[in-house]
Amino acid sequence: MSRGVTYPAGFRAAGISAGLKPSGKLDLGLLVGEPGTVAAGLFTTNRMPAAPVVIGRTRIAATGGAVRAVLVNSGQANAATGQRGAADAEKTTAAAADLLGLAAEHVLPCSTGVIGEPIHLDAMLAALPSVVEALGAGGDAFARAIMTTDTVPKSAQADAGAFRVGGAAKGVGMIAPSLATMLTFITTDAPVTPADLDGLARRVLQPRFEAITVDACASTNDTVLLFASGAAGGSPVAPGSGGWRALEDAVAEVGDALAAQLIADGEGVTHVLLIDVEGAGDDVEARTVAKAIAESPLVKTAAFGRDPNPGRILQAVGAAGVEVDPTSVDVWIGDTQVVASGVIPPAYFDADQLRAAAAASMTAAEVPLRVRVGAGPGRSRVLGCDLTYDYVRINGEYTT
Amino acid sequence: MSRGVTYPAGFRAAGISAGLKPSGKLDLGLLVGEPGTVAAGLFTTNRMPAAPVVIGRTRIAATGGAVRAVLVNSGQANAATGQRGAADAEKTTAAAADLLGLAAEHVLPCSTGVIGEPIHLDAMLAALPSVVEALGAGGDAFARAIMTTDTVPKSAQADAGAFRVGGAAKGVGMIAPSLATMLTFITTDAPVTPADLDGLARRVLQPRFEAITVDACASTNDTVLLFASGAAGGSPVAPGSGGWRALEDAVAEVGDALAAQLIADGEGVTHVLLIDVEGAGDDVEARTVAKAIAESPLVKTAAFGRDPNPGRILQAVGAAGVEVDPTSVDVWIGDTQVVASGVIPPAYFDADQLRAAAAASMTAAEVPLRVRVGAGPGRSRVLGCDLTYDYVRINGEYTT
Repeated sequence: MSRGVTYPAGFRAAGISAGLKPSGKLDLGLLVGEPGTVAAGLFTTNRMPAAPVVIGRTRIAATGGAVRAVLVNSGQANAATGQRGAADAEKTTAAAADLLGLAAEHVLPCSTGVIGEPIHLDAMLAALPSVVEALGAGGDAFARAIMTTDTVPKSAQADAGAFRVGGAAKGVGMIAPSLATMLTFITTDAPVTPADLDGLARRVLQPRFEAITVDACASTNDTVLLFASGAAGGSPVAPGSGGWRALEDAVAEVGDALAAQLIADGEGVTHVLLIDVEGAGDDVEARTVAKAIAESPLVKTAAFGRDPNPGRILQAVGAAGVEVDPTSVDVWIGDTQVVASGVIPPAYFDADQLRAAAAASMTAAEVPLRVRVGAGPGRSRVLGCDLTYDYVRINGEYTT
Repeated sequence: MSRGVTYPAGFRAAGISAGLKPSGKLDLGLLVGEPGTVAAGLFTTNRMPAAPVVIGRTRIAATGGAVRAVLVNSGQANAATGQRGAADAEKTTAAAADLLGLAAEHVLPCSTGVIGEPIHLDAMLAALPSVVEALGAGGDAFARAIMTTDTVPKSAQADAGAFRVGGAAKGVGMIAPSLATMLTFITTDAPVTPADLDGLARRVLQPRFEAITVDACASTNDTVLLFASGAAGGSPVAPGSGGWRALEDAVAEVGDALAAQLIADGEGVTHVLLIDVEGAGDDVEARTVAKAIAESPLVKTAAFGRDPNPGRILQAVGAAGVEVDPTSVDVWIGDTQVVASGVIPPAYFDADQLRAAAAASMTAAEVPLRVRVGAGPGRSRVLGCDLTYDYVRINGEYTT
């Protein structure tokens, strides 16, 4: 089991049941860094942001990144809750800060669960002493406490020479590549200035969490937080140094691992799509085409049916809104080329070998789709998934 | 039964089985207007357009709208078929034109079915004499011959004083509001100049077919054709005259009827969503927000589950990419207000009356959602539908 957010030195975490979820499962998490810890944040671009997102953004700015803790509840998203929601988040983080001997502005709130439902304030306030008391090497309990319809907790860790990096994440629906993806917490014991930590988050983490999509729905609560405790000692790591490059690689490794875990546990997912687009005008155009394929309900249902359906991939490429020369489009499913210069080979329909080879690639848990749209330098990889009966069941029956 | 495209004077139509569909059902349609007939066309914006779309666009331009007939096959889409696909469409329309005593450029090709599969050329050429011989008051057979996974044929008719308007359409998947929607054919016996007919198509029909979405997937073959035979007699109707206004209303009525039939027969649909957005900065912003709601998999699955989930509607509003003041958003499901000034009333969760009233509205075949996003003049209605097990089944099992 990964030690997750408590793998790096200088962090304590806990996860307990506070009675916020009807199921009685773990639903309150707390992560605290030792004095000197700083944080960087990436928040949803949704125009209806939840109260914790608004407060988190404000507190990171107001303290210059000197944020040491995050209090996370699952069960209620505290979104579309108006002034009451803001007051609730302020009350709970102020009470947690009191118990930790901190000012409220050094503690961030995060919430995930049903939109519109106020957090169960009394239950949460009553549980705060217990979660503070439980603080320790609780990376696993923390990862469990932030789950909603997740079927497995998600955590990762990596080494960067003298430094360690750890992380936890949650999210199975409302996941889309527009900034952050649900809740992700990454920690390191490397000493890093707030400005450099912010740059690291934007350069290394943002593109990774923008490149995954379960259902193209950017949540009101998406948040990625990156904490550095500096507990490994020494002066701040200088960008460009060998230590920095090792740190960047380790943060990237943890980010990749968490992003992959989010997609693999996407609601109802049975196949992950690894979509590589190359030959576009630039990386942004390649990303746009890859996302259009990943978000097409017709491609997603074909993946569920293990049906290598090159026509649906072409439809998505053509509808992406990017200028494409139809005669320069090639598509591979696994190692099988199913479109050459914009044409599906007639052999695909006449003989069965081509289709059978492509179909065989679609039985794997991870299906590689490669699409060349021209001779340009632009390339991008997006992780998508199939659209299944279970996605419909989960979202037709569950009130989020 | 509606007489569809043959309701106006001056049109003959037929639909036969040419052996293009494995099922043996009707799969070849022909619509022919008497001498003097003109046509206007709206075609897909997909960058990978099917061969018939490219040829249709060219022929309408080359003849100045003097197009008199359309030959439609179902079973194969003739998209992603390269030069062979273009040659096949030219051969079949040339052969049909010969039989009709026309030049090839006065006959348009249309295809719908499996992308990438070449049309069954020999079978189609062999069937042409039969379909020409069958020409008559065959609006219903024509509407049936253009079906693919449609469960019912779609046709409509309306009167405009001295003039008549009729139409037929097909389409259940790959339907999205970016220009036309699969295949739609509308006829009138009013005398109209090609330029005025083109204006009528763009002003009256385009917004109607851009305002429906089954799955946000713009097809490679989407086409709307509007034919005017002039068989009612008289000189061309002048835009702005009383006759013109009646004609415009009748074309709008037929367009509305066909668009509604397309959504109601959307793949797996059990509930149609009538989404009205008001108070936006302008109509384009209102349309963007309405589409974001209509295309959200979370809203669509909630509609399937008859779950009035105001949080998911707010999520879609916030993610639409339009600037919105969160405190000025109101949402009604049926007559029940479920969001007031950006907040879901706590009563929605505490008491059950509010939720029960909203849930009752969601059991209807047509569910009205009204969203006010501010005090601006912009408004738009979009027709969407739910995302169901059957959508996944149909598209996971059927190769389109």
